[in-house]
Amino acid sequence: MNIRSVIGSVSRIVAVFGALMLAPAAVSLLFGESDWTAFLISSIVTAAVGVVGALLAAPGTDWRIGNREGMAITTLGWTACALFGALPFLLAGSMSTPADAVFETMSGLTTTGATILLDVEAQSHAILFWRSFLHWLGGMGIVVLSIALLPGLQVGGSQLFRAEVPGPLPDRLEPRIRETAQRLWGIYTLLTVGEAVLLRLFGMSLFDAVTHAFGTVATGGFSTANKSLEAWNSPAIHLTVTAFMFLAGMNFTLHYRALRGNFEPIAKDDELRTYTGIVLAAIALISLDLLAHSNYSLWNTLRHSSFQVVSVITTTGFTTVDYDVWPPLSRAILLILMFVGGSGGSTGGAIKVVRMNVLAKHSIRELKRAVYPRRVTVVRLNGKAVPEEVSSAVLAFIILYLSVFLLSMLAMSAMGLDFMSAVGAVAATLGNIGPGFGLVGPTCNYSTVPAVGKWLLSFCMLVGRLEVYTVLSLLVPGFWRRS
Amino acid sequence: MNIRSVIGSVSRIVAVFGALMLAPAAVSLLFGESDWTAFLISSIVTAAVGVVGALLAAPGTDWRIGNREGMAITTLGWTACALFGALPFLLAGSMSTPADAVFETMSGLTTTGATILLDVEAQSHAILFWRSFLHWLGGMGIVVLSIALLPGLQVGGSQLFRAEVPGPLPDRLEPRIRETAQRLWGIYTLLTVGEAVLLRLFGMSLFDAVTHAFGTVATGGFSTANKSLEAWNSPAIHLTVTAFMFLAGMNFTLHYRALRGNFEPIAKDDELRTYTGIVLAAIALISLDLLAHSNYSLWNTLRHSSFQVVSVITTTGFTTVDYDVWPPLSRAILLILMFVGGSGGSTGGAIKVVRMNVLAKHSIRELKRAVYPRRVTVVRLNGKAVPEEVSSAVLAFIILYLSVFLLSMLAMSAMGLDFMSAVGAVAATLGNIGPGFGLVGPTCNYSTVPAVGKWLLSFCMLVGRLEVYTVLSLLVPGFWRRS
Repeated sequence: MNIRSVIGSVSRIVAVFGALMLAPAAVSLLFGESDWTAFLISSIVTAAVGVVGALLAAPGTDWRIGNREGMAITTLGWTACALFGALPFLLAGSMSTPADAVFETMSGLTTTGATILLDVEAQSHAILFWRSFLHWLGGMGIVVLSIALLPGLQVGGSQLFRAEVPGPLPDRLEPRIRETAQRLWGIYTLLTVGEAVLLRLFGMSLFDAVTHAFGTVATGGFSTANKSLEAWNSPAIHLTVTAFMFLAGMNFTLHYRALRGNFEPIAKDDELRTYTGIVLAAIALISLDLLAHSNYSLWNTLRHSSFQVVSVITTTGFTTVDYDVWPPLSRAILLILMFVGGSGGSTGGAIKVVRMNVLAKHSIRELKRAVYPRRVTVVRLNGKAVPEEVSSAVLAFIILYLSVFLLSMLAMSAMGLDFMSAVGAVAATLGNIGPGFGLVGPTCNYSTVPAVGKWLLSFCMLVGRLEVYTVLSLLVPGFWRRS
Repeated sequence: MNIRSVIGSVSRIVAVFGALMLAPAAVSLLFGESDWTAFLISSIVTAAVGVVGALLAAPGTDWRIGNREGMAITTLGWTACALFGALPFLLAGSMSTPADAVFETMSGLTTTGATILLDVEAQSHAILFWRSFLHWLGGMGIVVLSIALLPGLQVGGSQLFRAEVPGPLPDRLEPRIRETAQRLWGIYTLLTVGEAVLLRLFGMSLFDAVTHAFGTVATGGFSTANKSLEAWNSPAIHLTVTAFMFLAGMNFTLHYRALRGNFEPIAKDDELRTYTGIVLAAIALISLDLLAHSNYSLWNTLRHSSFQVVSVITTTGFTTVDYDVWPPLSRAILLILMFVGGSGGSTGGAIKVVRMNVLAKHSIRELKRAVYPRRVTVVRLNGKAVPEEVSSAVLAFIILYLSVFLLSMLAMSAMGLDFMSAVGAVAATLGNIGPGFGLVGPTCNYSTVPAVGKWLLSFCMLVGRLEVYTVLSLLVPGFWRRS
């Protein structure tokens, strides 16, 4: 472990993050609110710590970012941002305890969208902007953003990239990692602007349009309204958000190729096909269930079921309706979708569709091998053989994911949460979804969870966002040994 | 596929099963009850079908039992026994629909112990004996029993053995499969007699002692009392049952070695150590939880928590108390234990401890590999390297198990069961446990489940008992092609 390069890189990320806090300060001034000082002080403190750290650990001849350094920088960089990002909430007085403020910041950055606020509408514009802006920064990734902005981090950029970008097989768009980071942030910004324009056209205020666009393309879920998207009873707005959530749950590599006029990968992508198939099947099943057991009209059934399905599978967490009162089959389907998640290389969370693909193909292969032990078959994805090591890592990912899930669920049960609430809270934070079921369902929130539970759930969000391996590897014996 | 040898072998198993129906007929006569005719008729019909089938498909030069034949014989043999075994319930009038009678028979044979009877105490001795006797036959396995009894099945016996005996690595005790089958049934009988003697000594009637011994060593769970073991408020009886459930959840190979004076494998066995560790940890956690949140005395806390933990992890399903009213942590632990199951090569169901061992070690190996990609490490169990193909098959087993679980859970939700009841019913039948949570909790039963749900849950029991692969492989394309 090269401690010097870890401290240097984390400091740079913190410095970038501190500078970005000026954005909500500007929003505060623009709306003539008084809490711009909270953001300005936080920004100066954060940037100062970052700059001092970067100077102290200035790159020397021993500066080196390998595999272990990449994991350490990403995990510690995220943790640092979650801590510094909580400062404005505390200074502006909108939250009173560190547990609450860090939970909210981590929820923002990891694009979870779970909140401890009882009344978001009572918050200032700057606070609401900060929550949504956190989503946007965390969605495509603050490490990737730092690589795009700062030339210094491109040494070892590919290690950092791998530790932050979701999916078992992250693609590089360009041979140089810094260019890839810039392209990804470019597409991401384009989608955000596109959605904000549409939402503004369909009647949202500019402020609401921008914050909801942040929350959508990052698959975050924080809203500026207490009733989330239910507050805008506009089919056009609901459909726009549904469409952009779906786009945000796709692999961004496909968007990049499409923008360059190359639609072939989209037509042939196994993961996109599965993702679309699961979404359509879930909408169909839930619609039938709702038509049989509720009194929605056909149009409202389709509107709410498609919104909720896409919101949950992409792990966004926006709601147009209280799905916790839906019939058992619909609720069971939504709970399962919480574990599926978006595509690899998307901003969505949870396990990811590509892993489901690998798992399904691997299981069928093994079933065939039980029948024909002497025939050797290879698992293929997009026509290419998936190496055994990738299958093996994906399978271990599932086991590690389930282990974190079960242990956290037991801990939440020990704090007195009933079964459905404990399962819902952990599934919703680990999967970076936001609202769960039961006590932490769509109409309730996390304010009643005990402080120690908030810290644990914040940890779950980080583990989920960085896809288990990056965080848990810090616990492997010898990880911190000097190299 | 050699259809002739499949029909011939299934017929032999059915013939043996028909002959065994004379035992409950004898019990009926012994107690002076009138339903001996139902058992005699069922026995004659079943044995006749078996003998005719065996004669029609008499072994010829083409008789061959390979891998596929082994799976087909085991799956179809079990299905046939579940159908024929339902006859006495229908003829004696204790159940009125085929769905109920087959559910109860499958529940018996697969040692699930889930019942559709509202009042078992109103049943005749012969019916109660038949339910418990089904447990006993299914626990060690009707195919293994047929191999032990009939010389004809030893051709291809090892294929049959592998398809029926639980665990990813079934050990052979003796070079000849028929001797292994005989040894296993010998130990099994010894344990049964031992427990029955103790239960009789501690005050149970001979009838109750024998039936509960059947239910214990098979990890079944059918009782002759409506309140299960709660009906005997005797600490000695509860401790005896706890001890024998624990023994039944061990790999029977270890019992065999111990009986031959070789205790070294017991002292060194990784699986036994994990099994014991999980049991002790679960008892400790649940005891602390109960002491904090209920008003049991310390002694009753230990007694009920140890009984319930061993009953659930071994997938027996006996109860001494209504655990569905226990605090959230205790209930969550029990639900997780439902997926763990006993050891490989035991009569317990669910996933099995040895698979948990392989999964845990595999995941830690992959986590280390993420940190040190160039170091190659091997997963070891009992000091021996586990071949990659075994790990691979175990991981696929988990995925297939979870897939069957999720699909069945969705189907049960579609029939209107609430979430906890649907999860509980499928977990309890797929894991061969018996009582679940919610509507199908320890104090309720499966009588209210719709008929189509009973057929589905019967299928889950079979899939769970034959460990997924054996049943699902019948669906692999080309499985039925002539060889």
